[in-house]
Amino acid sequence: MNIHDLVRELREPAKSKIVLLVADGLGGLALEPGGKTELETAATPNLDAAARAGVTGLSVPVLPGITPGSGPGHLGLFGYDPLEYRIGRGILEALGINFNVGNRDVAIRGNFCTLASDGKISDRRAGRPTNEANKAAVEKLRTISIPGVELFVEPVKEHRFVLVIRGDGLGDRVNDTDPQVVGVTPLTAKGRDAASEKTAGVVNKFVAEATKVLAAQAPVNGVTLRGFATFPKIDSFEGVYGLKAAAIAVYPMYKGLARLVGMDILDPGVTLQGQIDTLKSVWDKYDFFFLHYKYTDSTGEDGNFPAKVQMIEKLDEVVPQIRALKPDVFIVTGDHSTPSKMKSHSWHPVPTLLVAENARPDGVTTFGEEACLRGGLGQFQAMHLMLLAMAHAGRLGKYGA
Amino acid sequence: MNIHDLVRELREPAKSKIVLLVADGLGGLALEPGGKTELETAATPNLDAAARAGVTGLSVPVLPGITPGSGPGHLGLFGYDPLEYRIGRGILEALGINFNVGNRDVAIRGNFCTLASDGKISDRRAGRPTNEANKAAVEKLRTISIPGVELFVEPVKEHRFVLVIRGDGLGDRVNDTDPQVVGVTPLTAKGRDAASEKTAGVVNKFVAEATKVLAAQAPVNGVTLRGFATFPKIDSFEGVYGLKAAAIAVYPMYKGLARLVGMDILDPGVTLQGQIDTLKSVWDKYDFFFLHYKYTDSTGEDGNFPAKVQMIEKLDEVVPQIRALKPDVFIVTGDHSTPSKMKSHSWHPVPTLLVAENARPDGVTTFGEEACLRGGLGQFQAMHLMLLAMAHAGRLGKYGA
Repeated sequence: MNIHDLVRELREPAKSKIVLLVADGLGGLALEPGGKTELETAATPNLDAAARAGVTGLSVPVLPGITPGSGPGHLGLFGYDPLEYRIGRGILEALGINFNVGNRDVAIRGNFCTLASDGKISDRRAGRPTNEANKAAVEKLRTISIPGVELFVEPVKEHRFVLVIRGDGLGDRVNDTDPQVVGVTPLTAKGRDAASEKTAGVVNKFVAEATKVLAAQAPVNGVTLRGFATFPKIDSFEGVYGLKAAAIAVYPMYKGLARLVGMDILDPGVTLQGQIDTLKSVWDKYDFFFLHYKYTDSTGEDGNFPAKVQMIEKLDEVVPQIRALKPDVFIVTGDHSTPSKMKSHSWHPVPTLLVAENARPDGVTTFGEEACLRGGLGQFQAMHLMLLAMAHAGRLGKYGA
Repeated sequence: MNIHDLVRELREPAKSKIVLLVADGLGGLALEPGGKTELETAATPNLDAAARAGVTGLSVPVLPGITPGSGPGHLGLFGYDPLEYRIGRGILEALGINFNVGNRDVAIRGNFCTLASDGKISDRRAGRPTNEANKAAVEKLRTISIPGVELFVEPVKEHRFVLVIRGDGLGDRVNDTDPQVVGVTPLTAKGRDAASEKTAGVVNKFVAEATKVLAAQAPVNGVTLRGFATFPKIDSFEGVYGLKAAAIAVYPMYKGLARLVGMDILDPGVTLQGQIDTLKSVWDKYDFFFLHYKYTDSTGEDGNFPAKVQMIEKLDEVVPQIRALKPDVFIVTGDHSTPSKMKSHSWHPVPTLLVAENARPDGVTTFGEEACLRGGLGQFQAMHLMLLAMAHAGRLGKYGA
């Protein structure tokens, strides 16, 4: 049985509130044998208190050994099987720049390139233009119009932009036009079904027009397109869980992932305290709050162990403000591990705690990787966390009589 | 999503080397309440050191409570879902005698029986002939030829032999000709589809000829056949993981299981030191090394607790030679438990350790059933072990962006 169908069948109305605090890339590794991880090193009196009050465990984002990107990592936490729901590269790129992509759209990653006089690519990244040159070229592309569809062109940075084609009956089974090598012309787009043929037709016209409008912009005088992706067919979060949900995130990618499942996207500004203030200000309006904290991941990606420790401590400081709101369920976890030792996302299970009236405590007294190994949630699949959240929130009835 | 497809999508080239040391039937049980298992009783300073250096856990071979045979046990460790890939009895029997079975073959377990003058079975095991009498009867069977197919007859022991029919378009949906009782004639083979009808036709001719050529060999004067099995459709290990793999096993069954997934089968002789010497001699030629150690299982099957302890200690002694090769990933596990208390395979989860640069240590300081319960790998499905091996070997890229 599909888990979402099960939830729809069992869910019960309640007034309870759930806070899901995602510390991106929370899990880590010790730098030396016998050492402590970033989370174990950090002074986290408030997270430790929460671990004592509740139940802990380790979240496996996808499967043992599988390192997720942000997309699969968050889909899992939102209760969607990350192996079933795949988000295309173009859609992720559009989400990442906060473009409000929808279900009539095909989103595409664009690269500016340099075309020689014979039409062959001489530089696949157009000499890595400045962001200003990128914006100027994007303005030129915005002058293109093609009957029957709406076009949106958005700058990303350097040579990268996003193209969104909005219309009816557009498919995404279209080959990349980027040949991945220089000295050849960009590839012609072809669709692998009728709907994708329609997209390919639009794309080929767009590319031809782009070459004209960019003619005077050399070395930014051509485009290649890849990662064609339609908006994924995905159940809305509220439709599945019956939870009115707010996303309180600073970075566009995470706002975008929350938008993907239909959460309301709030604008908390750029600080953690701004996020907490936003949480307080909308507390009465929602059932579910997704708070996203980026800096545990970015410091891990930088390989900066002490900075990651510091960012964890900074997060710990705001925990009392969240708990003071008395959420019925308070969860702290991560979408994946980002050990500063590895300077990258990793497959390691993610420390997780859940505080609720009927959580069964497990004797774990600190929040850390090794401590959570003895936690009452065990090692669980991330996609099951929402079931635990719903149950502890008194929102899931009995299955069967 | 199919896990093998996922691995093919995510895998990345690397120079790293993985050693999978399978101590057959490793897990055990204490003989008395409060006692220790065989592994916990054994003095294993080197395995304990590996457990301290790496991460530990318990492998569930198939599902909780399911006791696997050697086939499913090893398929799981090789990363194949043992509930999806089933190896027919005839194929296993052929693998077990080191017969190089292939994808045009139907392999069949044969029994010599005694036929009375009326053609009815009077002894289903032909009086359990000596191995010599078995070989003599097999020589007679080898004189049979049937147009359109190749026949191979191989002795096993006592009343058992293997028949392999090699040809095109042969099916295995054929009933056993062994009626399982005496006083009746052997059953006629019938196929349940066209390809299997072709096999059944060959089989019925073979049985008729066998009765003729064995006529003077009474009591070894008839045959029954069962366990018809074609070679399973199974992805090659190298095709899935991109690992050039060597099997270093002493016993034919385990060589056969490794051959089934396309590993190179090396000949290390019959001693553990011979296996280690072989490992050293081919270290530069492969990415993955499957070492199989039989005696933890056979002593368990014998119900000989102290002998199993001794065999574990003998295995422990060679661990430093393996680690001296500096494998990037070193795994010790078993294909199932074989508690000497039970004198048989069992369903109990199997102690497992994994040593690698980016393994996350778990505070476990000894290698044993109870210690591994607190291990960082938790209780995991055996078929996910290869994902962990690949991840720790730096051979799996990120899933999704």
